[in-house]
Amino acid sequence: MDFSSKLLENAVEEMSQLPGIGKRTALRLVLHLLKQPENQTEKLVSALHNMRSDVKFCKKCFNISDTDICEICANPKREENVVCVVEDIRDVMAIEATSQYKGLYHVLGGKISPIDGIGPGDLQIHSLVERVKSGEVKELIFALSSTMEGDTTNFYIYKQIEGFAVETSTIARGIAVGGELEYADEVTLGRSIVNRIPFEKSLKNS
Amino acid sequence: MDFSSKLLENAVEEMSQLPGIGKRTALRLVLHLLKQPENQTEKLVSALHNMRSDVKFCKKCFNISDTDICEICANPKREENVVCVVEDIRDVMAIEATSQYKGLYHVLGGKISPIDGIGPGDLQIHSLVERVKSGEVKELIFALSSTMEGDTTNFYIYKQIEGFAVETSTIARGIAVGGELEYADEVTLGRSIVNRIPFEKSLKNS
Repeated sequence: MDFSSKLLENAVEEMSQLPGIGKRTALRLVLHLLKQPENQTEKLVSALHNMRSDVKFCKKCFNISDTDICEICANPKREENVVCVVEDIRDVMAIEATSQYKGLYHVLGGKISPIDGIGPGDLQIHSLVERVKSGEVKELIFALSSTMEGDTTNFYIYKQIEGFAVETSTIARGIAVGGELEYADEVTLGRSIVNRIPFEKSLKNS
Repeated sequence: MDFSSKLLENAVEEMSQLPGIGKRTALRLVLHLLKQPENQTEKLVSALHNMRSDVKFCKKCFNISDTDICEICANPKREENVVCVVEDIRDVMAIEATSQYKGLYHVLGGKISPIDGIGPGDLQIHSLVERVKSGEVKELIFALSSTMEGDTTNFYIYKQIEGFAVETSTIARGIAVGGELEYADEVTLGRSIVNRIPFEKSLKNS
């Protein structure tokens, strides 16, 4: 693309570094900012700057937080000996939105993925093992995505904490509530039959 | 969405003000920035800030420019009495990429669209009429999109410059080069038959 302005070209170039934003989309976004009052760009710019320079990670669960210990870890009403292992903050937000979970979290920051060059040392696994070793955790719930990377990460952690007095579980996989059997994939349907639950228990859930 | 951090929430909120960027996409982009080195965010932030505060519009054609008069208007090799009327800088970039046009431009900044509250006064129409009145323009090429808004804008400008010694033309509409007749819409195919050109002329173009 041949820009008539170096300033515009720079802005488009930087914008197109974001994942899923190509040059054309970047140009559209930047031209939109140009049409809006200058303070809209300033608000975006300072929000991004402040976020990147001031955001903290909770020292206990490594969730994104404005304080040293996040709101969830600091909440005395949460069950502090149940810990749910997730990949990133989006998973925390998704689980919190259900209002069904009262324990704490541990945010790994990703999954073990040799292809992407992500090993156990790049994730918050050591700190999780320390939490387990300290005896504060009674139950560990694995809630990583059920991909090969997720399963590898689960198993790696499982091996690290073997021998400590901690129960482990994984979230249930099965047909979505309201989902039709005929459209489900075989793996999911298979798991949901193998891991069937007593009917009386299902009545309590609904 | 329930964020654990006000800083993160602000960044997502401002990011999702951009057109076509919803909250989920904004969160994905912002988390990406958090995973990257801090200087990538700083580069984006300063590129956007500098662009918005320092970018100029060419005083002659109103294209985006780093100087008072843009490179195209300042280029003595361009035909300065042919002016192509376009909507925004993306159209200038598209036409420039063809290397087929040697005249100047006039960037309106949009189209007349009463539904969106955009009247002639919001566009660079007065300045275009002044350019025509000054006698510097011999030919005016309308290259707005062929929508109702585009046609309205063309006609409005045409009425304003009636009586001045200026030729007007519009870019040719027709079947794209390499396009198949059977897949073309009727309007385009109809126009391309009505506005057929001598075969000898088509030989010269290719």
